[in-house]
Amino acid sequence: MSRELSARLVAELDKLVLIDPHTHINPHAPASTTLADIMGYHYYTELAHSAGLAKSQIEEPGLDPKTKVGRLVEWLDKLDNTVQVSWLVALCQRFFGFQDDRITPANWEKLYDDAAAKMATPSWEDDCLKSSGIEKVFLTNDFDDALTGFDTERYIPCLRTDDLVFHLAKPAVRERLAKATGTTVSDAASLKTAIGSLFKHFVEKGAKACAISLPPSFSPQPVTDAAVAGPLQKLLTEQELTACEQSTVSEYVFWTLASYCADYRLPFDLMIGVNRAVYRDGVFQGQDLFDQRVSLIQYKELFNHFPQVTFPVSVLAQASNMELVSYAWIFPNVVMNGHWWYSNIPAHITVDTKARLTAAPRTKQVGYYSDMYKLEFAWPKFQMYRQVLGRVLAEDFVLDRGWSEDRALDLGRQVLRGNVETIFGVS
Amino acid sequence: MSRELSARLVAELDKLVLIDPHTHINPHAPASTTLADIMGYHYYTELAHSAGLAKSQIEEPGLDPKTKVGRLVEWLDKLDNTVQVSWLVALCQRFFGFQDDRITPANWEKLYDDAAAKMATPSWEDDCLKSSGIEKVFLTNDFDDALTGFDTERYIPCLRTDDLVFHLAKPAVRERLAKATGTTVSDAASLKTAIGSLFKHFVEKGAKACAISLPPSFSPQPVTDAAVAGPLQKLLTEQELTACEQSTVSEYVFWTLASYCADYRLPFDLMIGVNRAVYRDGVFQGQDLFDQRVSLIQYKELFNHFPQVTFPVSVLAQASNMELVSYAWIFPNVVMNGHWWYSNIPAHITVDTKARLTAAPRTKQVGYYSDMYKLEFAWPKFQMYRQVLGRVLAEDFVLDRGWSEDRALDLGRQVLRGNVETIFGVS
Amino acid sequence: MSRELSARLVAELDKLVLIDPHTHINPHAPASTTLADIMGYHYYTELAHSAGLAKSQIEEPGLDPKTKVGRLVEWLDKLDNTVQVSWLVALCQRFFGFQDDRITPANWEKLYDDAAAKMATPSWEDDCLKSSGIEKVFLTNDFDDALTGFDTERYIPCLRTDDLVFHLAKPAVRERLAKATGTTVSDAASLKTAIGSLFKHFVEKGAKACAISLPPSFSPQPVTDAAVAGPLQKLLTEQELTACEQSTVSEYVFWTLASYCADYRLPFDLMIGVNRAVYRDGVFQGQDLFDQRVSLIQYKELFNHFPQVTFPVSVLAQASNMELVSYAWIFPNVVMNGHWWYSNIPAHITVDTKARLTAAPRTKQVGYYSDMYKLEFAWPKFQMYRQVLGRVLAEDFVLDRGWSEDRALDLGRQVLRGNVETIFGVS
Repeated sequence: MSRELSARLVAELDKLVLIDPHTHINPHAPASTTLADIMGYHYYTELAHSAGLAKSQIEEPGLDPKTKVGRLVEWLDKLDNTVQVSWLVALCQRFFGFQDDRITPANWEKLYDDAAAKMATPSWEDDCLKSSGIEKVFLTNDFDDALTGFDTERYIPCLRTDDLVFHLAKPAVRERLAKATGTTVSDAASLKTAIGSLFKHFVEKGAKACAISLPPSFSPQPVTDAAVAGPLQKLLTEQELTACEQSTVSEYVFWTLASYCADYRLPFDLMIGVNRAVYRDGVFQGQDLFDQRVSLIQYKELFNHFPQVTFPVSVLAQASNMELVSYAWIFPNVVMNGHWWYSNIPAHITVDTKARLTAAPRTKQVGYYSDMYKLEFAWPKFQMYRQVLGRVLAEDFVLDRGWSEDRALDLGRQVLRGNVETIFGVS
Repeated sequence: MSRELSARLVAELDKLVLIDPHTHINPHAPASTTLADIMGYHYYTELAHSAGLAKSQIEEPGLDPKTKVGRLVEWLDKLDNTVQVSWLVALCQRFFGFQDDRITPANWEKLYDDAAAKMATPSWEDDCLKSSGIEKVFLTNDFDDALTGFDTERYIPCLRTDDLVFHLAKPAVRERLAKATGTTVSDAASLKTAIGSLFKHFVEKGAKACAISLPPSFSPQPVTDAAVAGPLQKLLTEQELTACEQSTVSEYVFWTLASYCADYRLPFDLMIGVNRAVYRDGVFQGQDLFDQRVSLIQYKELFNHFPQVTFPVSVLAQASNMELVSYAWIFPNVVMNGHWWYSNIPAHITVDTKARLTAAPRTKQVGYYSDMYKLEFAWPKFQMYRQVLGRVLAEDFVLDRGWSEDRALDLGRQVLRGNVETIFGVS
Repeated sequence: MSRELSARLVAELDKLVLIDPHTHINPHAPASTTLADIMGYHYYTELAHSAGLAKSQIEEPGLDPKTKVGRLVEWLDKLDNTVQVSWLVALCQRFFGFQDDRITPANWEKLYDDAAAKMATPSWEDDCLKSSGIEKVFLTNDFDDALTGFDTERYIPCLRTDDLVFHLAKPAVRERLAKATGTTVSDAASLKTAIGSLFKHFVEKGAKACAISLPPSFSPQPVTDAAVAGPLQKLLTEQELTACEQSTVSEYVFWTLASYCADYRLPFDLMIGVNRAVYRDGVFQGQDLFDQRVSLIQYKELFNHFPQVTFPVSVLAQASNMELVSYAWIFPNVVMNGHWWYSNIPAHITVDTKARLTAAPRTKQVGYYSDMYKLEFAWPKFQMYRQVLGRVLAEDFVLDRGWSEDRALDLGRQVLRGNVETIFGVS
């Protein structure tokens, strides 16, 4: 009974057209052109590598797309248990007429060709979005992105700021900043001016969020101009900074970003908990992991200091979800945002969704974002989420709480779409 | 099948009259008089504030109860997904003849008046307890409470000690201690004497527990009289203490409390993991949060040093539950106690209950306490727990282990009532 | 439907003959001779002690087996909710014709005698293994074990190295090392030589793994011969080492072990997270607990430095499971290994298994090991795991993903047996 009810709710939720509030889509090439774009997603390269495929086989210079796919396919039988591979099979079935339940050395070539033909259709980008029930897609733009040459109504800019906070010591970053803003950073004041120019530019181009990913150790505090002056001069003159000095600069830039979010009324997406390059010989984008020993208490001062800024928070470790629910329950400016990366599997989403939907205001939860690099992944990822959401609505609301199906669906629609509109100011 | 079985077990558990082993009831005004007493519970004020209601609207000086309720009701549609609001609706249905499934701007005034009329009945306190299946209620008394003017058989005193351990540096606390005990603290010896007087007073008045809530950073160690002498003198002469000196005093007082618990054979309720005033502009009682990075290993010395003291332990972070189960499994003096605060939602209770009931002695678990401030909340909160308990007994014992329903019910009754009697010495 | 499907899958998985990849079996006395061997397992002594049975009653010198069992039986009614006691009842039913569902003061004596008679059969060891569906059993051998006098095809040696890494400062450990290897440790070079001799000996005798249990604080780094020289000389001359010096020696030995695992192509089982002797007055083997604040990031350098070594990792805290899944998903040399100790209850196994099976390569997971001290426990423990595994396969694969039962069973067989063969090189 519960499974039938759940399927009925999912079928209704399927009809809703969505806005995807966090992706890594390149708006100049949003859709794939071959299966290599799809299977080159780090989920498949890193899992195949983890199962034994040499990095050199995956990242061989000059490797043609079809050969690359063929090599990856050889390893899929070791990965077919994963939900990540289930996304791949599901999208091939939905979009490319794939009939089997597994992609194998025996059937992949036809699939490759069928997919290529389909994706060569001029309308593929539109068709894929339409078939996926997606009408708008948030981007993750480098701070020096010109934001031109694409439809910013469909592909909504978002200012990604990791480079500014953590890599300002790299001359290339400062050069990009100078070029993008016309301001050469020489001190705290000019740094603030330059960052302010970025916000102006992004907001003028329709940006709806500022975003950053943060390591587990980050614990931002306000830093005065005087306190940052010394470390910043060392950085600008290419001297080696101590870890403490680097933190001072990072925190100063971070706090400056939050201030501009207040000024420009932009939500500040915090993606908390990733350690970069843990596995140094991993494949591209398959090197990052985390340390579960992180707490939102590290953001206490931030949340107190900027009550006017909305912070949609994503956590990487599932252990952090309870803190996220509790901080969103108490702080008006903390919002629960999606199910990020290693947390993005049904086992974790189920547990997290149950807690979020039953303990914190329904207005303060963004159910899901795809985090995709290519449009084809929106559908299978959202579908995975819808199935979890449908099950939680069925069990925890209709069956346990006696809600009508319509009432449960209203809640589902709110976390799938309504809150994206109200929290980010899009519609 | 599982849901019917579970409902059958819950119906049987419903018949059991309970002792509520931890509340914040004021025995001089245990029941509510208006819906404002009920909706003024921090769960509703903090959630409404989190959803957008200004603190000034909630805490306006001189605000009359009905206006306050009206303001809160406006925000309930943003919170109706929460289990906290389900408690509110359930108690209004049970006690006040409320027929709808939501409290709205359209129906709340009649409810307000109906509730006020019902609560004005002279027998309301008795009626509410009877209807709730509760016969005794543990209190949380300030250390200087006279414990007079109420029935200590029904309202069982409990010595709350946060002020002594963490706020002895406040002159007002020391004055209250002097007034309550006749002993002015001037050194370690007189501090011990004063605290001893409190225990004597409380035990004479029928107290059945000593209790304290503790921050995640607390890690008590034994402190000698000599070691505390210096910091204590600074404190008594109103000098600023270092964090380390403050810890020394806190640990000394804490260890002294544990010693008296041994002497007086009182269980010592440890409520581990709360950070106070994290959200500084939060509403009353809606400012506290936590840091999941806490471990019971911090209490290793305590549990080893006082084998004769029973420690009913509550943990705030759900991540701590596995440690709690494991420490109760190994240490004879560690008991698992209820589901505290942010852990008190079905999603967490279910996971925690499964682990507790299947891994540690059945004699060492207090299933639930309401933590209520007003009597009306015992029923919906215990009912939430009974439903989780019924489901776990049905699935993990009757279906998975082949237990008879009677055998499962015996286990349920033990954690609901029997263990409260044996652990706290009440009946 | 889900329960019937699950039972059908379990019935099929039951037919598979298994290799148990981690136990504490003594190959010279693998099976029990009386119920005291079985009920003397620390799970029962520590739980009975936790419930109130005095340690002196359990560990009384000269206590005869039958009296010991009688004393423990008196406390089983306080523990019968635990899955640990369900193992006991299940094995008595399966092996000794026990007909009741509880072992009580009224029925235990007959059971004791029936069990003793059965276990006195000369073929009991073979019969028990056969009835349990186990054909090979990994041991946990002291480093100075001669590894003679038993069938190393059935009882597979495994080099346990805790003493070397953490207790080299004990003269007895160094004497055992000298006696076992003919090399007296006088410096880093001779220490390496001695350890090398152990590996040679173990591998010649058919060892298939090196293993160690590690405290939550351990965070190994490479240590040069020069860096260890000073601390090692202090250790060898029986001077007191600082905590830092002790860590240097431990890390040096640990890194040396990993190097030899690379040389000898032995998997290195890491059992991460145990604190020894937390409850100092606990019963034998009932004193250890843990601190959930541990992260696999502590092993970052190790995993990077030894890509050619397979590390089957067990974690003690359930909170660590998500890291384990994620590290196994990224690092080719990290394998998820069983459900250890306090995590070894269905509530935790279920959650952990769902995440492992749906997020990381199917080739990189060892489903279960019994960790048993006596052969009789393999069956009930594996049976507990099979039931969880069957449920996860039914729900998450057959029902949620539309897999055929055969496909799901293939996955089940792989984590139960196939991966033990491929990861440890046995068959």
